[in-house]
Amino acid sequence: MIEIQPSASYSFTMRLYIENKPGMLARVLQAIGQEKGDAGAVDVVKVEGKFKVRDVTVSARDQAHAKNIVEAVKKIDGIKIRYVSDRVFLLHLGGKIRIENKVPVDTRDALSMAYTPGVGRVCEAIAKNKEKASTLTIKQNSVAVVSDGTAVLGLGDIGPEAAMPVMEGKAMLFKEFADIDAYPICLDTKKTDEIISAVKWMAPGFGAVNLEDISSPRCFEIEQRLKEELDIPIFHDDQHGTAVVTLAATINALKVVKKKMEDLRIVIVGAGAAGVAIARILRGAGAEEILVCDSKGIIQKDRDDITDGIKKWLAENTNARNESGDLHDAMKNADLLIGVSGPGIITRKDVEAMADDPMVFALANPVPEIQPEEINDLARIIATGRSDYPNQINNVLAFPGIFRGALDSRATDINEAMKLAAAHAIAQCIDEDDLGTEYIIPSVFNKKVVRMVARAVKKAAYETGVAERKKTAFGGEIGM
Amino acid sequence: MIEIQPSASYSFTMRLYIENKPGMLARVLQAIGQEKGDAGAVDVVKVEGKFKVRDVTVSARDQAHAKNIVEAVKKIDGIKIRYVSDRVFLLHLGGKIRIENKVPVDTRDALSMAYTPGVGRVCEAIAKNKEKASTLTIKQNSVAVVSDGTAVLGLGDIGPEAAMPVMEGKAMLFKEFADIDAYPICLDTKKTDEIISAVKWMAPGFGAVNLEDISSPRCFEIEQRLKEELDIPIFHDDQHGTAVVTLAATINALKVVKKKMEDLRIVIVGAGAAGVAIARILRGAGAEEILVCDSKGIIQKDRDDITDGIKKWLAENTNARNESGDLHDAMKNADLLIGVSGPGIITRKDVEAMADDPMVFALANPVPEIQPEEINDLARIIATGRSDYPNQINNVLAFPGIFRGALDSRATDINEAMKLAAAHAIAQCIDEDDLGTEYIIPSVFNKKVVRMVARAVKKAAYETGVAERKKTAFGGEIGM
Repeated sequence: MIEIQPSASYSFTMRLYIENKPGMLARVLQAIGQEKGDAGAVDVVKVEGKFKVRDVTVSARDQAHAKNIVEAVKKIDGIKIRYVSDRVFLLHLGGKIRIENKVPVDTRDALSMAYTPGVGRVCEAIAKNKEKASTLTIKQNSVAVVSDGTAVLGLGDIGPEAAMPVMEGKAMLFKEFADIDAYPICLDTKKTDEIISAVKWMAPGFGAVNLEDISSPRCFEIEQRLKEELDIPIFHDDQHGTAVVTLAATINALKVVKKKMEDLRIVIVGAGAAGVAIARILRGAGAEEILVCDSKGIIQKDRDDITDGIKKWLAENTNARNESGDLHDAMKNADLLIGVSGPGIITRKDVEAMADDPMVFALANPVPEIQPEEINDLARIIATGRSDYPNQINNVLAFPGIFRGALDSRATDINEAMKLAAAHAIAQCIDEDDLGTEYIIPSVFNKKVVRMVARAVKKAAYETGVAERKKTAFGGEIGM
Repeated sequence: MIEIQPSASYSFTMRLYIENKPGMLARVLQAIGQEKGDAGAVDVVKVEGKFKVRDVTVSARDQAHAKNIVEAVKKIDGIKIRYVSDRVFLLHLGGKIRIENKVPVDTRDALSMAYTPGVGRVCEAIAKNKEKASTLTIKQNSVAVVSDGTAVLGLGDIGPEAAMPVMEGKAMLFKEFADIDAYPICLDTKKTDEIISAVKWMAPGFGAVNLEDISSPRCFEIEQRLKEELDIPIFHDDQHGTAVVTLAATINALKVVKKKMEDLRIVIVGAGAAGVAIARILRGAGAEEILVCDSKGIIQKDRDDITDGIKKWLAENTNARNESGDLHDAMKNADLLIGVSGPGIITRKDVEAMADDPMVFALANPVPEIQPEEINDLARIIATGRSDYPNQINNVLAFPGIFRGALDSRATDINEAMKLAAAHAIAQCIDEDDLGTEYIIPSVFNKKVVRMVARAVKKAAYETGVAERKKTAFGGEIGM
C-alpha cells in the first residue's frame, strides 16, 4: 500500500506560545517532521513577555494525522498551543463567493440610472423583445449550478445544505477558469418532476444550467426533459464533463500507442452518470466495441434485471456481440479500461489479461480502481482522477470552456457535436511531439485549454444550428 | 403643471465630429441649452483631420426630449453626430452585478482547499449539523430577490425576463447599502402554489428571501405561507419596506405638528400591497382611526363586493365607525393622507377639507396623487416618493438595515416588532432639533441609517425570540 502525501486539504495553523530560548522553533519543526507532517509558513505574530508567538502552518494526510502532529508539538517543554485552526474550514467561513456591483450606486444619478426611474426603460425594451434580456441583464454570462445534494463527491446523499460548499466551489471554478458568473442553487427536493419544475421556473435570469451531483438514474431524465423544455443550454457535468475529458485523453493515448478508436475493445466499469456518458461519447467518436460492467457484470440484452431505463439503452447500444460474464471476463483482451466505479475493483491479473499496450484510466476518486504503482510495469498508459499522478482526468478541463463557448454563441443547447469538439480541442492543446505515456492530457492550469475549447464549441454550435451568428440586439441609440 | 427636470435616467452621450474653428463647442452647448437639455461632461476623444472629436453627455426629461436635443445639434453647420449612446442602456449591457471569488483558485493547494478533496470535510460537517451551513456557506449573507414580474414599478405585468433589470438593481442596493449578497431570481410562473414551491425548494442556500413586485392579492398569500413553511426570514418589500418608511415619516411628522398617533384620522388611498401593509403597521404603532379607500370608495363591512381576502381583513380591522362614502368623504377632517395609488387622485379641495396642520404623503411614483406645488400653501407637511422634493419616502431606507439585522442575528423571521423597531430607528436618525416640515425623513445616502436600523432590528429579533444570542457553531478546531 502506498503512503498518501500530506496535502493542503488537511492543513491547519497552530498558534504557538514559544519560550524565548535558543533552538525552540527547531524542536517544533523536528516534532512535525518526525510525525511526517509537512510544515509550511512560519509567521511571527508578536512577542509577549517571555514568549514568542508564532503561527505555524502544517499539512497532514488526514484528520487523525493532523491530531497526532498537534499532540507531538504539545509535548515539547516550553511550548503552549493557544489554538489550532483548520485552514479548510477557515477558508469556508461565510462562504467562498460574493456579489459585486459593476458600478457603484452611491449618488442620486447612479441610483436613477441603475434603479428607478431609469431602469424602467430597460425593462420596457425587454418586455417588447425578450431576446434583449441576453444583452441587458446578467443572463448574458450567468450559469445556475443546480444540485439536489444526492450524489455529492464520494459522500452520496448528504442533502442540499451540505452540498452548498461543493456548488460554491464549482461557481468559483466557473469564475476562475472562464470568467462566468455562476450561482449555486441547492434544491430541497429529490423528486424528478419537482427538480425539473424548479429549474424551469427559475430559468429566465440564467443563460445556462449546470446540473451537478444529482444521483443516477434521475439525472438522465432531468437533463433530457430540461433540454427539451428550455431554450438555454443544460449540461450535467458529472456525465458530460467527465466524458469529454475521458475522450480527450483517449484521443491522445491512441496517438501514443498507435491504435485506432474503431479497433479498440473498451471496458467501462460503472454504469452511473459518468459511465453512461462515456459510453455514449466514445460511440459518437467511432468506438465499436464497448462493454459496460455494473455490479452484476457485463450489461447485455439477456439479463433479466434490465428491463428499462438507461441500462436498457446500454444493453442495446453497447456489447454488439452480446457477451456475458463478469468484469474479469470483460477485461480479457481489452485495450482500454475506464473505471468510474470504486476503489480496488481492478486487480493486477485483470490488467495482465488485457491486450498489448494496455491503457488503464482508473478514475475513482480519491482512491482509484487500482493504484498506479501496482501496474506501472504492466500498463502502457495510466490515467487517474488525482492530481498527484500523471494524466489527471479532471472536469475542469471541459466545463469552463464548454459553457464559455455556449454563452458566447448564445447557443440554445450543448449538443453531441459541441462535446466532441470540446474533447478534440482539449486533446489538441498538447503538441503531438510532446505527447507521451505520462502526458496525454493538459494541466488544469494550462490557460490555453479554456480558450481552445470555447472556440471549438462555438464553432460547432454555429455549424449544427443551435446558435446563429447575428449582430447584437443592442444598437445603443436612445431607448434602443 | 410643473415642468419635469432633466435627469440622469434620460441621459445620453453624443459623439460629435466638430470642425476645428472657434466657437463651435459653444454653439453645441447653446443648442442644447435652448432645448432645455442639461449638458454634462464634455470630453475630447481625439483630433481627426479637420475635426475635433468630442463626447458630449446630456440629460433630458424623456425620450422625446432627448431626440429633440439631438436634432437641434444635428442642424448646426460643421457638426456631424457619429452616434448617440443611451447611457442607461450602456450601463445595463451585460447586467449590473457579477460574482467574485473571495480567494483565487489558481494553484493546486487552493483547488484542494476550496474544492475537492478538502471541501468534502466541510460538506460532512454540515451534513452532521445543518446549522453549520449558516457559517460555512454563503447562506450567512445571501438574500434571494424573488419576483414573478407581475407588478414591476409602474409597468405592471411585464414578465420575468423584463423584471430582471429591477431585481438586479435591487441586488445592487443590497450590496451598496448593507454589504449583503443578493441574487435576483425571476420566476416563469404566476401561480401562487408554484411560486411558493419554487422558493421553498431553492431556500437551502439562502439566508433570507426578499419578495419583490409580485402583484396583489397573490403577494399576501405567498408571503404568509412562506413565512409559515420556511425557517428563514421572508419579506415582501413592496408591502413592508414602504410601510416601515411611511411609519418613520409619520413618527417624525407627529413631532413637528405636535399631534399623537392615537388621535389621528388617517386616510390611506390604495388597497394594494403597500396600502394594506401601511394600515397594518400604523395600527401596530397605535393608530386608531384609519380609513382605507380603493377605487370603489371607503372600505367598510357592509360593502357587497368585499367577501374575503385582504379587503375583508381591512374592513374588519380599520374604519371602526364603519363610515361609508368615497375618498372625498374620507378626507374630511383627516389629519394624514397617505396616497399609494396613482397620479392626480387627490384635489386641492380634498386637502382644504382636512383637519388643521394637514399632512399629505403622496407616494405614487413618478407622478404623485397631487403635485406638492398645488398644496404648498395648504398642507403643513408634504412627503412624496420622489427624490426631487423634500421628504422622500424611499424603501432603501428600510430594507438594507432590516435584512442586515435579520441576517446578523440569524433570525428565523422578520416580525412586526422588528418592523416597528426599524421605523423608530429610521425616525431617530434625525435629531429632534433638526426636524422640520421639510425634513422628517433622513436622506437615502445617510450612512447612519442602515447601522441604526440593523441594530434595532437585531435587538427586536432577540427580544421577540425569533433569534438567539449564541456562540458561533464554528470553533475552528481541526475538522471543527
